[in-house]
Amino acid sequence: MIQTVNLAKKLSLFSDHWSPKIVGELNDSYVKLVKLKGEFEWHHHEREDELFFVVKGSLLIKMRDWNLRVGEGEFVIIPKGVEHLPVAEEEVHIMLLEPKSTLNTGNMVSERTVNELDWI
Amino acid sequence: MIQTVNLAKKLSLFSDHWSPKIVGELNDSYVKLVKLKGEFEWHHHEREDELFFVVKGSLLIKMRDWNLRVGEGEFVIIPKGVEHLPVAEEEVHIMLLEPKSTLNTGNMVSERTVNELDWI
Repeated sequence: MIQTVNLAKKLSLFSDHWSPKIVGELNDSYVKLVKLKGEFEWHHHEREDELFFVVKGSLLIKMRDWNLRVGEGEFVIIPKGVEHLPVAEEEVHIMLLEPKSTLNTGNMVSERTVNELDWI
Repeated sequence: MIQTVNLAKKLSLFSDHWSPKIVGELNDSYVKLVKLKGEFEWHHHEREDELFFVVKGSLLIKMRDWNLRVGEGEFVIIPKGVEHLPVAEEEVHIMLLEPKSTLNTGNMVSERTVNELDWI
């Protein structure tokens, strides 16, 4: 089914953090929305490049030897293999684009790993 | 090289219509920006799903038996094989996400076909 997805409306449907929701699929990838607050954990993705588009707020992405800030209306692509640590000092709303095989915690498995994602 | 891409700044760098510019690559896909004005031409993509995210303005997408409107802050995914005709009554700014193999005019080749895309 072909339908328009309004990011703000979809984002109003949930309030939990670090739990991506699927809002679209194309080719081998999902489009997801997620709210972040606080610090995640260091990880990388073995095989998947990952796009972070900031819908609201400002995201700090720490890498091992430098940091990057992604503001509202900006995106960054973290290539496979690059260790990163997303940090949201204040709540940040993100649209993610990544292959369906991508696990949120990448090479790490922890209590923050989300195995089954819901569509909203 | 990992860098932040600001959509508004990139969009300020060009003014031509129907000529997508590459602003990122991930996995087998490109992220592109394009400005649309007027009516394109009917086409479909044999093998590629295509995501249209409206950064500014409002995009009408005609399909053979119905139409869809995509407003600012909204996206739509047109699955492979679905004939569509993008129409921009006023100028619209779009972020596209599609496989690198995607031709802008899909199954059609015309004077509007862009074979070599530039990075900006």
